[in-house]
Amino acid sequence: MSKVATDRVRAALAGINAVDRPEIWVTLRTPEELLAEAADVDARVRDGEDLPLAGLLLAVKNNVDVAGIHTTAACPGYSYVPERDAESVRRLRAAGAVALGSTNLDQFATGLVGTRSPYGAVRDARRPEHISGGSSSGSAVAVALGLADIAIGTDTAGSGRIPAGLQGIVGIKPTLHVVSTDGVVPACRSWDTVTILARDLPTAELAMGVMAGGAREWPSDVRLAAPSRPRVAFPAELPELSPAWAAEFGRQVARLADAGVDVAPIPIDLFLRAARLLYDGALVAERYAAVGAFVDAQAAERNPSGLDPTVSGIISRAGALSAHEYVADTERLAELKQAALAQLEGFDALLVPTAPLHPLIAEVAVDPVGVNSRMGTYTNFCNLFDMCAVAVPAGEVDGAQFGVTVVGRTFDDAVVADIARRIAFTPAPPALFASGSAPSPDSTGKPWPLAAGAQGTPLVVMGAHRRGQVLAPDVEKLGGYWDGTVRTAPRYRMVALDTQPPKPGVYRCDEGRELVGERWILSEAALGQFLATLPEPMLLGSMRLNDGTSAVGFACDAVAASSSQDITHYEDWLAALSDSLAEPDQKDSDREYGPIRNLLLTGLSRGFYSDAKRG
Amino acid sequence: MSKVATDRVRAALAGINAVDRPEIWVTLRTPEELLAEAADVDARVRDGEDLPLAGLLLAVKNNVDVAGIHTTAACPGYSYVPERDAESVRRLRAAGAVALGSTNLDQFATGLVGTRSPYGAVRDARRPEHISGGSSSGSAVAVALGLADIAIGTDTAGSGRIPAGLQGIVGIKPTLHVVSTDGVVPACRSWDTVTILARDLPTAELAMGVMAGGAREWPSDVRLAAPSRPRVAFPAELPELSPAWAAEFGRQVARLADAGVDVAPIPIDLFLRAARLLYDGALVAERYAAVGAFVDAQAAERNPSGLDPTVSGIISRAGALSAHEYVADTERLAELKQAALAQLEGFDALLVPTAPLHPLIAEVAVDPVGVNSRMGTYTNFCNLFDMCAVAVPAGEVDGAQFGVTVVGRTFDDAVVADIARRIAFTPAPPALFASGSAPSPDSTGKPWPLAAGAQGTPLVVMGAHRRGQVLAPDVEKLGGYWDGTVRTAPRYRMVALDTQPPKPGVYRCDEGRELVGERWILSEAALGQFLATLPEPMLLGSMRLNDGTSAVGFACDAVAASSSQDITHYEDWLAALSDSLAEPDQKDSDREYGPIRNLLLTGLSRGFYSDAKRG
Repeated sequence: MSKVATDRVRAALAGINAVDRPEIWVTLRTPEELLAEAADVDARVRDGEDLPLAGLLLAVKNNVDVAGIHTTAACPGYSYVPERDAESVRRLRAAGAVALGSTNLDQFATGLVGTRSPYGAVRDARRPEHISGGSSSGSAVAVALGLADIAIGTDTAGSGRIPAGLQGIVGIKPTLHVVSTDGVVPACRSWDTVTILARDLPTAELAMGVMAGGAREWPSDVRLAAPSRPRVAFPAELPELSPAWAAEFGRQVARLADAGVDVAPIPIDLFLRAARLLYDGALVAERYAAVGAFVDAQAAERNPSGLDPTVSGIISRAGALSAHEYVADTERLAELKQAALAQLEGFDALLVPTAPLHPLIAEVAVDPVGVNSRMGTYTNFCNLFDMCAVAVPAGEVDGAQFGVTVVGRTFDDAVVADIARRIAFTPAPPALFASGSAPSPDSTGKPWPLAAGAQGTPLVVMGAHRRGQVLAPDVEKLGGYWDGTVRTAPRYRMVALDTQPPKPGVYRCDEGRELVGERWILSEAALGQFLATLPEPMLLGSMRLNDGTSAVGFACDAVAASSSQDITHYEDWLAALSDSLAEPDQKDSDREYGPIRNLLLTGLSRGFYSDAKRG
Repeated sequence: MSKVATDRVRAALAGINAVDRPEIWVTLRTPEELLAEAADVDARVRDGEDLPLAGLLLAVKNNVDVAGIHTTAACPGYSYVPERDAESVRRLRAAGAVALGSTNLDQFATGLVGTRSPYGAVRDARRPEHISGGSSSGSAVAVALGLADIAIGTDTAGSGRIPAGLQGIVGIKPTLHVVSTDGVVPACRSWDTVTILARDLPTAELAMGVMAGGAREWPSDVRLAAPSRPRVAFPAELPELSPAWAAEFGRQVARLADAGVDVAPIPIDLFLRAARLLYDGALVAERYAAVGAFVDAQAAERNPSGLDPTVSGIISRAGALSAHEYVADTERLAELKQAALAQLEGFDALLVPTAPLHPLIAEVAVDPVGVNSRMGTYTNFCNLFDMCAVAVPAGEVDGAQFGVTVVGRTFDDAVVADIARRIAFTPAPPALFASGSAPSPDSTGKPWPLAAGAQGTPLVVMGAHRRGQVLAPDVEKLGGYWDGTVRTAPRYRMVALDTQPPKPGVYRCDEGRELVGERWILSEAALGQFLATLPEPMLLGSMRLNDGTSAVGFACDAVAASSSQDITHYEDWLAALSDSLAEPDQKDSDREYGPIRNLLLTGLSRGFYSDAKRG
């Protein structure tokens, strides 16, 4: 009898008790409520419901509505009790996540430190005299300590990435508005994003696939994967970054290069100039538009209602900014964006340190605005430029978690996740770690934008477009996602076409066999572009697979089929390739090998197939 | 010896003299300059250069830079002399247009009346006691009077449409930013658009195709045509519209319905509420951001420099607006846009009156702000919602030109042009009309977004997807543009496939013939979507045409080809269809007609092919 959710809740309740970190929570639901919700999930699983998040515990930053729990945004006087879950929360719970409660944050999500809250400064999971990072402070520490498996954060200036970086966990900051912000207390409405925090990337992606979609539409040319050899830019200069972390960042870049990523430095100053616009200009007026009237009214009544003085000062001052200054800063931002993205031309993503330092709580108390401002050096520009990002752990330096963030263009969410997956550092859990029985999702999940509504079309390829083969880069350039090996229904034959590079030609035939192919998933526009450049005699159309499904697949025309050597018996172009390239003395002389040998040798002499023997 | 440009300049110079409307121009270039530029164009044509706009004269609204001519924005004190043409001007001149000079406008493009200028109120082309409409006043009257063939306008609140409507000419207001605004004095930078004015739609589209592109990128699923039976919404209520014009609007809607357009009323109040945000809220701060510092400085020095008091009052007051109000109005606008566009769901476009009235100059003088505000009733919302529009003449009522505007979604520029083409009213030219020898472009030009960089892919179809045939709506729904009949190279054969609906199957064969097909142009995403839903045994791939080019075309697979009746001798599926459906006694008994007759009769009995006999 499945009771994965119930077991997980019991373990978490014990952990919450053991770690004694009350400042993580604004509202923790009662054990009775949690066990009842978990029992419900377990019952739904037993009834056969497909609940991808069953057994995962969810913590929700307290500027995001959870039905029946006070939404405070870390300001008790602002509090209201929502009747409905925010759309992001609703989707996660509908998929089986159990909501533990609401977490502490920098008030009104204004801060990157985690100390700006009347509910207490949130302490680092490992070194409690250090800050947690914020503003999604409670969410990040709950995940880092193993109390929750996934947590909702929000991110305007880095609030979903900075605490992920400092806590040694993963934070996905998606493209603006692909996750609904319904039921979220706005910080800067134009640049607010709902994020996910988790201990590993597969779990974070699984949750994003559930949480996103239905808000902003994915474009029809969305990229679904990074190329197998991505190009990643990194900052030529690293201002504000501590020397020890700068060295660690350099090692990370070198490791990526060793792992087959093309890395190159670019100037970063335009990105950093845009970053400063978020607080130093008139754009901060968005914060006044969100909650300024409340803040001013409280201040006027000499009834601060738990207002954090730093936060309320920032918001209140933003009320005096003029509209034409806001417009002028918006124009400046657009110019900076254009120039900065031009420097990223030719790259798939930009790698930056997540946070530049990990200060003590005492250091923040001395200089709350100055330290906070430095914290945002590498995060502030991202939402302003409508970029997406994934923050991942990248190392440990003297007990501190060092994190890096892969930043990509609008809607390149699958691309940055792919590149982030290559930064495979698993931090040691904190001493108090309390994870219990959380299930880990399948790490071979599809790109989360597909789960979140991006249109992908399968394309079955048989030969030169297979992964690692000579034309695979054409598919990779189009953002194609490699979806594994397939077999056709037993109704196709294969010939060796006299093309350069050599290719198999496949055609439907009643006396056919099951042939081995590979499936890519392409956006609609990528599929159209692929078709538009396909040379004779190649054709595309519906192909039947041996699992009963159909997909767009390759065929060759009748002239080519009838004039070429049949190689159906190989059932797999790679087998034919491998056999034909083998030395004569290694061959099985009983088989009809070698009909494509001459074609292949021509191809080899022209530089194709340097690694054709991988099969 | 070609001297089309020179002849046109001579005719225009005579016309400019004859009409005696000095208020049209801020700067008119000298006859010597114009004849020299025209001679240069004529020489380039003689040298074989392809200059699509050769022989067309261009007037440029004086808030758009023309190298060497004062840019005043109708404020002499603001004046500067640009060294370079604005990008829009540069493109039109590079394509052979001769720039006559710069035209008068409502100062700083702030107004829809044409009277707010120290260079004089621009008078209506036909009834000089009436306003021209503005702010592109001089440009519109220059075209209406035949002095220029195309004119650059700008449009934020309707400045490119209102004067087109009142002057009985065409105004294309493209999707925001598809035309570069480099070299344009900003009015409200977020919503400013460069527009084109011309006497007919083909000329306007030709110029747009040259002028647009290279700024904002077209999406990969851009629609390139309206469906053959478009759905057009119109306002259920018509506030501010004069009764005579309301009647004319109703007749226009009825004519569209008669012409095969599905028309239906929708509520318009959300559109009109958004329209009021442009001046009545904080968004007008964009005007202060653009030129407010200049206006305030001039006012402070008691040196008004030709400031129009109405315009400078609007701009100056906008300096006091606060940033948080601007942010709040932006949010309100986003909400209104979402709700308003939801009401347009299922429609290809919205038809509105262009202007609601055509006031006297004296009426505007009495109430400059009130009348102006009413003028923008049906135009103000468009740019705020990032919609595109085409204003066309639609009738004459008591000597006044009545115009309507087809408004469409972002990037539906080809769709609204297609629908506007159905409103085929040609106004009587004004008495002073002076057009001379202006050449008229081919009216079968392709959608201007294709010329302006939108990616389109040709798709050659042979049977059921041909225009008017049973599956053509599948292509139309994807925004396909019908590009005419083609013939393949003489290397294909055709069979009658046993599919429902019946289709021809085509395959490459050395003993083939030239087959008749039709070419659609689809966006990349549309082509991908089309391929993804194609059923067996249909295939797509490169097809050779008899003009030596190749395009994506249809094929059928080998099984289908070998098991179906050959009908190659018809060379054209429609001929085979027509022959097979003919009565037996009308047939030529010597020919192998009728092999697909049974298939077709099955199709007919199932409701396909109601108009299959059109061939």
